[in-house]
Amino acid sequence: MSLQRKLRYAVLGIGRMGSRHAENIAFRAPRAQLVAVCDPRPSSLDWAKSALPSTIKTFDSSDRCLRESDVDAVLIASETGLHAKLAIDSMNAGKHVLLEKPISIDLETSRQVVQETEKHPDLKVMVGFSRRFDDSYREVKNMIDKGKLGIPHLIKSATNDQHDPSGFFVSYAAASGGIFIDCGIHDIDLARWFLLPSTPAVKQVRKVYALGHNIQHPELEKDNDVDNGIGIVEFENNGILVVHCNRTMKHGHDCFTEVFGTEGKVIVNGNPQLNRVEIRDAYGVRTESTPTYYERFREAFVNEVNEFTDVVLDNKPLPVSCVDALESAKIAAALTHSFRTGLPVYFDDAGEPVLA
Amino acid sequence: MSLQRKLRYAVLGIGRMGSRHAENIAFRAPRAQLVAVCDPRPSSLDWAKSALPSTIKTFDSSDRCLRESDVDAVLIASETGLHAKLAIDSMNAGKHVLLEKPISIDLETSRQVVQETEKHPDLKVMVGFSRRFDDSYREVKNMIDKGKLGIPHLIKSATNDQHDPSGFFVSYAAASGGIFIDCGIHDIDLARWFLLPSTPAVKQVRKVYALGHNIQHPELEKDNDVDNGIGIVEFENNGILVVHCNRTMKHGHDCFTEVFGTEGKVIVNGNPQLNRVEIRDAYGVRTESTPTYYERFREAFVNEVNEFTDVVLDNKPLPVSCVDALESAKIAAALTHSFRTGLPVYFDDAGEPVLA
Amino acid sequence: MSLQRKLRYAVLGIGRMGSRHAENIAFRAPRAQLVAVCDPRPSSLDWAKSALPSTIKTFDSSDRCLRESDVDAVLIASETGLHAKLAIDSMNAGKHVLLEKPISIDLETSRQVVQETEKHPDLKVMVGFSRRFDDSYREVKNMIDKGKLGIPHLIKSATNDQHDPSGFFVSYAAASGGIFIDCGIHDIDLARWFLLPSTPAVKQVRKVYALGHNIQHPELEKDNDVDNGIGIVEFENNGILVVHCNRTMKHGHDCFTEVFGTEGKVIVNGNPQLNRVEIRDAYGVRTESTPTYYERFREAFVNEVNEFTDVVLDNKPLPVSCVDALESAKIAAALTHSFRTGLPVYFDDAGEPVLA
Amino acid sequence: MSLQRKLRYAVLGIGRMGSRHAENIAFRAPRAQLVAVCDPRPSSLDWAKSALPSTIKTFDSSDRCLRESDVDAVLIASETGLHAKLAIDSMNAGKHVLLEKPISIDLETSRQVVQETEKHPDLKVMVGFSRRFDDSYREVKNMIDKGKLGIPHLIKSATNDQHDPSGFFVSYAAASGGIFIDCGIHDIDLARWFLLPSTPAVKQVRKVYALGHNIQHPELEKDNDVDNGIGIVEFENNGILVVHCNRTMKHGHDCFTEVFGTEGKVIVNGNPQLNRVEIRDAYGVRTESTPTYYERFREAFVNEVNEFTDVVLDNKPLPVSCVDALESAKIAAALTHSFRTGLPVYFDDAGEPVLA
Repeated sequence: MSLQRKLRYAVLGIGRMGSRHAENIAFRAPRAQLVAVCDPRPSSLDWAKSALPSTIKTFDSSDRCLRESDVDAVLIASETGLHAKLAIDSMNAGKHVLLEKPISIDLETSRQVVQETEKHPDLKVMVGFSRRFDDSYREVKNMIDKGKLGIPHLIKSATNDQHDPSGFFVSYAAASGGIFIDCGIHDIDLARWFLLPSTPAVKQVRKVYALGHNIQHPELEKDNDVDNGIGIVEFENNGILVVHCNRTMKHGHDCFTEVFGTEGKVIVNGNPQLNRVEIRDAYGVRTESTPTYYERFREAFVNEVNEFTDVVLDNKPLPVSCVDALESAKIAAALTHSFRTGLPVYFDDAGEPVLA
Repeated sequence: MSLQRKLRYAVLGIGRMGSRHAENIAFRAPRAQLVAVCDPRPSSLDWAKSALPSTIKTFDSSDRCLRESDVDAVLIASETGLHAKLAIDSMNAGKHVLLEKPISIDLETSRQVVQETEKHPDLKVMVGFSRRFDDSYREVKNMIDKGKLGIPHLIKSATNDQHDPSGFFVSYAAASGGIFIDCGIHDIDLARWFLLPSTPAVKQVRKVYALGHNIQHPELEKDNDVDNGIGIVEFENNGILVVHCNRTMKHGHDCFTEVFGTEGKVIVNGNPQLNRVEIRDAYGVRTESTPTYYERFREAFVNEVNEFTDVVLDNKPLPVSCVDALESAKIAAALTHSFRTGLPVYFDDAGEPVLA
Repeated sequence: MSLQRKLRYAVLGIGRMGSRHAENIAFRAPRAQLVAVCDPRPSSLDWAKSALPSTIKTFDSSDRCLRESDVDAVLIASETGLHAKLAIDSMNAGKHVLLEKPISIDLETSRQVVQETEKHPDLKVMVGFSRRFDDSYREVKNMIDKGKLGIPHLIKSATNDQHDPSGFFVSYAAASGGIFIDCGIHDIDLARWFLLPSTPAVKQVRKVYALGHNIQHPELEKDNDVDNGIGIVEFENNGILVVHCNRTMKHGHDCFTEVFGTEGKVIVNGNPQLNRVEIRDAYGVRTESTPTYYERFREAFVNEVNEFTDVVLDNKPLPVSCVDALESAKIAAALTHSFRTGLPVYFDDAGEPVLA
Repeated sequence: MSLQRKLRYAVLGIGRMGSRHAENIAFRAPRAQLVAVCDPRPSSLDWAKSALPSTIKTFDSSDRCLRESDVDAVLIASETGLHAKLAIDSMNAGKHVLLEKPISIDLETSRQVVQETEKHPDLKVMVGFSRRFDDSYREVKNMIDKGKLGIPHLIKSATNDQHDPSGFFVSYAAASGGIFIDCGIHDIDLARWFLLPSTPAVKQVRKVYALGHNIQHPELEKDNDVDNGIGIVEFENNGILVVHCNRTMKHGHDCFTEVFGTEGKVIVNGNPQLNRVEIRDAYGVRTESTPTYYERFREAFVNEVNEFTDVVLDNKPLPVSCVDALESAKIAAALTHSFRTGLPVYFDDAGEPVLA
C-alpha cells in the first residue's frame, strides 16, 4: 500500500449517513482525502465547517461541486430519490462513484444507471452494500470460498429493526419502496453473494413468494406496505433465501443470518449485543442490543470507503457493482409484487421478473 | 393429587419409542401402573421381561392385549401405519388412548379416528405432541397467556435433524408421508398452539406455500420428498408460520423456535446444547449438541404420560386432541401439495385445504 | 440391570430435601422401593401419607424405624446436627446408608462416622455430594479421565446463592458452620474429584488461604461468618482451587465451575439458565436463572439415589465415600480458620490441617 | 470539538505496538497530527517511510527527536526498560507524555517518574492502561457511577493469554518483572478503578496473597516466575480482587472480568469471540476467539490516543495518571513478593507494601 497518492473525495449529501461517511473519509481512511462536501442545507454545511478538516470546500450545488472541487471520486449519500441523477452526473463529470444503496426504488431508473456505467468503463462505480464490508460476513464468505461449509444452499436472514415510536419511520416508509426494497435488499445481496458463483448466469432466480402483515403500523397500509414481511427466493441453482423484514423489535436492531452448507452452518449475529458486557440482575442474565444498524455496522462503513479507495487507486475489481445492485433490486421488486398479489412471481429466461 | 388409584396402562408397540414410554410409565409416573406390553417381535418382549417390572404381562397380539390385559388406558407407539387401527380398536375396547403422533400420514384415516372419538365422549384420546409437554415451550405458552409477549403474530420454527449417514433415514422416509408431515408437524402444532385462540374458528388457515431441495439424499426424489423443506402458513387471523425442516445437520438435532409478539420475542433452544458444559480448546469456544430429538425431549415424554394420567384420573380437559392433530395434518398435507405443485394452496370456508 | 430384587429404603427426615428424596425413591428409582419414612413432625408424616405410595410405613422415631421397618438401606436427610448419630445408628442396625452432606459441621464427629464405617466393611455408606451425579460435571470428569483436557491443574469454582430477603438464611447460617463449610464444600469436593488421583496420598493439601466480607448480612458477623467468602486451596500435587461462596446474587442460584487443563478448559454452567427460553424485549436479550440449587440439580438427586441403589445391589465401589467427605471437611475447616485468623493454614504430613 | 488546532505528536519506539500507535495517530485521530517517529532500528524507520504519511520526520535518537521535532506530545512505546528515562527526558523537553504501561518493572523507578511529573504540573502525563478506554469496561464504569450495580465489592478478573509455542514468550518473560507485574497489572488497575473512590485514601490496600504454578513453561522457574498465577487483593474499603494470570490457553486470548455489586453483577468478555460468527459443524456449536490482546483491544487503543489528545488540547483531567500506575505497580509487586514467600503481604499506613 502506497501513501504517495491519496484519492480526493467529495461527499454529496451530508445528512445522517453522509456526515458519517465524510468523517470516515477525513479521519479514518489513510489513502483518502476529503476535499469537498455538498449539501443544500446550510445547517449541514455549518456542521461540516466545525467538524471536518478546515481545508474542506463546501458547496450547496452538486453541479458546482462536481465542476469546481477537483476531486477524483464522489461518495453519494443524498436522499434516495437523487441517487441515480447524481451518479449519472458524477460519471459524466469523470468521477469514480461510491453510491449509497439503493440506486433507486424504481427498477427502470436503476437500469439507466447501470447503462451509464457501461459507457464509462474507466470509472469505478460501486454501490455501498455495507454488509459486504463487515468482518463477520466476510469471514463467512471466506469460509464458503475455502469450502469449509461445503456447498451453501440455504440462507435464512432477518433484518429486524427496533420499533420506532416517534412516527419518523412511517413517514419515511412512504418513499422507501416498501419493506422488501428498503429493508430486505441487504439480505438479498448477501444471499446472492453467498449462494451464486462469482459470475452468475443471466437467469439467476426461478421464482419468489412473499407475504406480510402489519403489527404496529396500520398507517403503512395506505402505501400497500407492512411492518413485517416474509420473502422466499428460489434461485436457479436451487439455492434458497428466506428473508424476514421487521420494524417492530423491542430490544434493538437485530439482523441475523444463517447460512446452511452441506458441511455445516454458520450464524451471524445470533445475539445482537452492543458490547462485551453481560448483566446479571433482577431481570436475569442479559445483554444490551445495538439500537440501530449503525452501531452494528459502524466499522463496515469504514472498511467500505477504504476498500473503494484501494479499488480506484490500485485499479482492482469492484467487490460489488451496480449490476449486483440491480439484480438485488429485481428480486426485491418481485417480492413486493408477490406480496401485493399473493402469488409467486417467476423470472424469465432473460433474468427479468414477470410482474404482469 | 391422590395416589389412591393408579391408571393401569398397556403399551402397544415397544420399539424405540415404545420401550421408552413403557419405562416412563413403569418407573417415572407415580399415578400410573404399567400392566401390559404388546409387540409382535419376540426380541421386544424379551427386552420387556428383563427391563420392566416382573409383574408385567406380555402379548404379541393387540387384540388379545386389549381383551385380556384389564387396563384403563393404552399408549400406542406402534409403527405409524397401525396407529389409526389400534386407536379405533382401543376405543372400541373402552380404553383411554395416548397415541404417538401422527394419527396417520393420510388425512382420511385421521378423520376416521376423529369421528371415532366423537362416538366415545367418555374416553380421553390424546395425540402425543411431545413439545407441548416440554418445560421451555410451556414457559412460552405461559408467557403468551399472561400477555408478556403482547399479541403473538409470527413463528419461525425449524426442526433440523442430524445427518444420518447410515441410510436408515432414507428407507424410513418412504413411508413417512414426506418431510412436512413427518418432521414439520411439530412446528405446525406449536404454531397453532401459540397463534390461535383456544377454540379456533372453523377456517383457521388462509393459505400455505412450500418449497424445498435435496442436499444429501437424492434418493428421496423418487418419493417426491426432499431433505430440506421450507413452508409458510398464513393463518386466517393473520398469524404466520415459517417452518424449516431439514435432515442434514452436522452438529446434532437442532430444533429452534422463535415467537414474535408485539411486546417482545422469545427463542426456544437457540443453542441445542446437550448439557451445561462449554469447552474451550483448539476448536474454539464450543458446546456439544443433542444428537437426536430424544435427548432434547426426554423429560417432555415423562411429562406427557404423567399429564395424560392426570387427565384421565381427574377428568380434566385434553391438552391436545385428535382434532388438533387433524388440523395440523391438514396443514402439513397442504404444504406437501404446495411443494409438489409449486403453487400456493388455499383453504376453503369449511377449513379444508383445496388440494385440486 | 436386573429388576428381580429391589433395594428397600427408609428415609429418615422428610423435610424439604428429604421429601424430594422420598419421592425420587418411590417414583423415579426402578430398582428401589420406598418402604418407610421417619420424621418427628406430624405434618411431615401427613404429607407422606398423601403424596407417597399408600403401602408406606411411617415412623416418628428413628430407633423404631430402624428396628421395625425391615429395610436394606436408609437415606438420611434430617437436620445436619443429627446426620452423624443417625448414620452410626443405621450402621449398627446393619443398614446401608446414603447420607446427605455434610456428615457434620464438626471435624471430630465426621471422623467418628468414618471410623464407624471401617467397622462395617460390608455396608455401603455414601455421602450425597450431588454434583458428582450431575450430567455436566460427569461429562467433565469423563473428559479428564480420557485425557481430553490434558492435565487438570486449576479449578475456579463459585457457589453463588440467590439473595434471600426473608431472613431464613441468616437464622439458618448460625448452625451451618460458616460459609466455607456450608456452601463451599461442594466446590471443594469437585476440586478433589477433578484434581487428585483416584487414590490420593495421605497428605493431599499443602495450604489454604481465605478471606471474605459481608455485603448484605451484617448479622452474620456475630457468628464470625460472611456472605461472600474467597478461598484458595493449594494441593500437594500443585493443583489449585479458587472458590467463591456468595449468598447475595440478584438473578438466581449461579454455580459456576471452570476447570483448566493443559490442553483446554471447560466451564460448567456459564449461564445458569432455568430452561431453553431466551427472551428479547425492552430489558435486552435475556434468560431466566435457576432460583435455587434444587432446580439446577433436580436430576442429579435422582441419579444419586439410583446409583447408590446399583452400588448396593451390584456390590460396586462407592463413587464418593465418607473419607472423601471428611477430606473435604478438613479443607473447609482450614479455610474457615484461615478466614478467621487472616493467615494461611498449612497441612501436616498426616494430612491434617494445623489449626493452632 | 474544534479541529482548528491539532496536537503534534512524536512516537518514540515503533515496534509492534508503537507502529500501531503511530498509525492510529496518523489515520484515526482527527485532532492529532503525527509529526515524527523515532526508533534506533533502520527497519522500523523504513516501515515508517512506507506506511505513514510522507510528511513524517524520522529519528534514530530520542534526544534529537525531542530537540528537533517540534512536537507538543510524545507517545512512548519503546521497550519497557526505557519507559521511565524517555518519560523524564520528554517532560524535561516540555512535552506531554502518553506512556505505554508499565512505567517500569521497578517500583523505585516508577516513583521517580511520578516525582518528575510533580515538577511539571503543566504537562499531561498519562499511562496507557488500555482497558480504561475499552467500550465495555467503560460501560461497566458508567453503570457503577450511576449506581446500577449498587456498591461494587468484588472483582474476579482473568488475563489469560494464548499459549505461545514459539518460545518468544519465555525469553520475553525474563525482563517482564513476573506474571503479576506483566500480565496482572491491567486487572489490578481495573479493580482500583471500579472499587475505589475517585480520590482514594493514602492506604488503599490491606493485604495481598498470591500463589502459582508452572504448567507449560518450566524454564520460567529460573526467574522465579510461573505461567499461572493467582492473586488476591484485599482493599482497605473491604473490596476484594481475585486475579488469575495465565499464559497457557489453547483457544486464544481470554480476558474475563466479573464485577459483583450489591444490586447485580456484570461480566465483561464472557466469550472472547473474534467476531459475530458462530459455526455449527462436526465440532459442535462454536466461536473463534481473539488470538491476542490486540484483536480484543484494537479500538481501545484508538480511543486512548484520541482521549489523551482531548485531555491536552482541552486541558481536561487525566483519566489515568502516573500515580494510578504506581499504585497498581505496588500491588503487583506485593503479589509477586507474596507468591515468592508464600505469605500474605501487608500494606503500611503510608500505603506502602511491607516487602521485608
